[in-house]
Amino acid sequence: MTHFRYLSFLTDYGLEDSYVAACHGVGARIAPDVDIIDVTHLVPPGDVRRGAAVLAQTVPYLPPAVHVAVVDPGVGTARRGVAVAAGDSLFIGPDNGLLSWAVTASGGAARAFSLTNRQLWLDRVTPTFHGRDIFMPVAAHLATDADLAAAGDEIDVADLVTLPAPERLVRDFTAEGEVLTVDRFGNVQLTITAADAAQIGVTSGGAVLVHCGRRQLTLPYRNMFGAVATGELVVYVDSVGLVSIAVNGGNAAQRLGLPPGARVSITAIPQTIHG
Amino acid sequence: MTHFRYLSFLTDYGLEDSYVAACHGVGARIAPDVDIIDVTHLVPPGDVRRGAAVLAQTVPYLPPAVHVAVVDPGVGTARRGVAVAAGDSLFIGPDNGLLSWAVTASGGAARAFSLTNRQLWLDRVTPTFHGRDIFMPVAAHLATDADLAAAGDEIDVADLVTLPAPERLVRDFTAEGEVLTVDRFGNVQLTITAADAAQIGVTSGGAVLVHCGRRQLTLPYRNMFGAVATGELVVYVDSVGLVSIAVNGGNAAQRLGLPPGARVSITAIPQTIHG
Amino acid sequence: MTHFRYLSFLTDYGLEDSYVAACHGVGARIAPDVDIIDVTHLVPPGDVRRGAAVLAQTVPYLPPAVHVAVVDPGVGTARRGVAVAAGDSLFIGPDNGLLSWAVTASGGAARAFSLTNRQLWLDRVTPTFHGRDIFMPVAAHLATDADLAAAGDEIDVADLVTLPAPERLVRDFTAEGEVLTVDRFGNVQLTITAADAAQIGVTSGGAVLVHCGRRQLTLPYRNMFGAVATGELVVYVDSVGLVSIAVNGGNAAQRLGLPPGARVSITAIPQTIHG
Repeated sequence: MTHFRYLSFLTDYGLEDSYVAACHGVGARIAPDVDIIDVTHLVPPGDVRRGAAVLAQTVPYLPPAVHVAVVDPGVGTARRGVAVAAGDSLFIGPDNGLLSWAVTASGGAARAFSLTNRQLWLDRVTPTFHGRDIFMPVAAHLATDADLAAAGDEIDVADLVTLPAPERLVRDFTAEGEVLTVDRFGNVQLTITAADAAQIGVTSGGAVLVHCGRRQLTLPYRNMFGAVATGELVVYVDSVGLVSIAVNGGNAAQRLGLPPGARVSITAIPQTIHG
Repeated sequence: MTHFRYLSFLTDYGLEDSYVAACHGVGARIAPDVDIIDVTHLVPPGDVRRGAAVLAQTVPYLPPAVHVAVVDPGVGTARRGVAVAAGDSLFIGPDNGLLSWAVTASGGAARAFSLTNRQLWLDRVTPTFHGRDIFMPVAAHLATDADLAAAGDEIDVADLVTLPAPERLVRDFTAEGEVLTVDRFGNVQLTITAADAAQIGVTSGGAVLVHCGRRQLTLPYRNMFGAVATGELVVYVDSVGLVSIAVNGGNAAQRLGLPPGARVSITAIPQTIHG
Repeated sequence: MTHFRYLSFLTDYGLEDSYVAACHGVGARIAPDVDIIDVTHLVPPGDVRRGAAVLAQTVPYLPPAVHVAVVDPGVGTARRGVAVAAGDSLFIGPDNGLLSWAVTASGGAARAFSLTNRQLWLDRVTPTFHGRDIFMPVAAHLATDADLAAAGDEIDVADLVTLPAPERLVRDFTAEGEVLTVDRFGNVQLTITAADAAQIGVTSGGAVLVHCGRRQLTLPYRNMFGAVATGELVVYVDSVGLVSIAVNGGNAAQRLGLPPGARVSITAIPQTIHG
């Protein structure tokens, strides 16, 4: 009997090298009955914040699993590796904030351990590939034959490194935030939530004033991008509940020049009552 | 016992975001004993025709499966979702023609259902991510615990949206068609079939006159690109039976400036008998 | 009982077309209980040397498997297909050197067979897609229901095509080599081994003189890139034991203009004893 049927795996390793497959191989050797679900391996190199956002938005739809995530610009330095229990899952990776948003989305850290038990590592550990040599073998052992406490020394969950929560500020009729992610389609996901939008009085079918950089745009607020004509900008709530800007059939990030981190605010436009 | 051991999965979601993994997770939660074969997730955004071509060319080599395909520029609008039985498989996706060529390649639609049974959807459905919220959960249920008729209201297979068949016209010594796909190698796959080529009198070992744009080229017709010298253009029948143009060791689409949809015709060149 | 629980799969097919999925499908049809681990499908088209390097560096971390590798610019020509037993695995692919470095890394070829037994192929073989029509079905049969000798005619292992070993020359205080691979991060992996570096007197914590093109650089030699400041160049031993050049948090290949094949030498710099 295994403790977990699934591992999930997110990295910035890319798909052109041997890195992802070497980790899959290590997992298969230790835990042949555990299936690995790849989240993505195309996090931009070293972009911890992007990795954290993608992981947090995926985990709610994954089965209970040992989630291994490695975006680790500090590999080999003093930063520690950790195993964190949250909700019905475990999270394994560098203690650099990468796991923190997913842990929060899973109900918060219940227990945490520093990965100090070399019994669960590969025999030979290199300083630059802890994904293969430490994180994956530890995860595979925890999924099958070891208890969480075997990972190493227990640490105070309050000592885990966390990324600051995505910035947003709601006041009166305006919600200020920033671009959290841009997806393949060029859809611009803001840190502003659907609840924020409701609070400032924005309602589907109405319009919002969008400030970004020096631009000020009045855009329709709809429940999906398909509600406006092809080529038109639209503000909507995306599939994870965040206010987003899209061009129906086009690329909003390019159109508006909005990369992750750019400041954006939305303001409700009072609607005339159509009776 | 599951009805289907496999799901296949084709989208335009890309590999850098959380979309594909969220769908894999939803499938794994509902149908843990069903394996998912990814066809591709790199269909250019919204390119239904490209998605249809890749799906139709892959399905004959896949095991019996529930094939989920989502290239869905109309997500959330009035276009319906459908489940179609064809051959030994089921096809699930938006009713926008994406499935139609694969359904034809599988022997044609036997039965079709509109996806109206919310019991098979996720509890919470967002207007912009039906792949995760509707198509994948319906597919996972149909693969394991539900009969096709549970998908929703049966519809007339004649009412399914179909893409027009790839254009081609054969007359006398000429076959006219267009570029159906360009692959990673820059090989240019035409809508003209091997049978069309035979019909106009083109034979392997001979030569053909190729018209594309204002160009007119006399090219060798061989049974593979490896039959000409490196760097040379060649016309051949590709691995799915379509006449194609390649550069041995090079990129024909770039060399000739031929994107999908470009008009190309081939004409037989009478061969002198070498006795 | 299957002979092998796993197949691994490396190609230059890319991820945007139907090629990889068609092969997965063929494998699943013949060997449904065998799992496929994708090594990579992003080998640059026709780059046999790159494919050989990635395969050789991955295989030591994979479970015993039938390793299928297809980078095959000569598909359909006289080059033969082979099955090679080495270590606890089998290797299947074109006999063009692609498999040779991985076979060596696995202990060398014990036996080899030319793939001449059409019983193990697909019924219909096309001249341009042996991955789908020959290599994958043979591999799936050998993983499950056929013995290696069923693959075809046994051949002398000395007749297998091998790539020349990566070039390197060690003399006095200098090791000369070339760039073997560049990875996603721009890390430049040399053909020079950690043992070579030790032999010429380079020691971690010291410095090395690096010659590449007309450049001559004095760089720190550390045990990982994280040991230097962000943005700094560093020489280190990478995760497979080869001397490499990185920029911590940056792209060394771009910074130095070093593509695969470029000549690089390193020379030990005598260290003053700090007492």
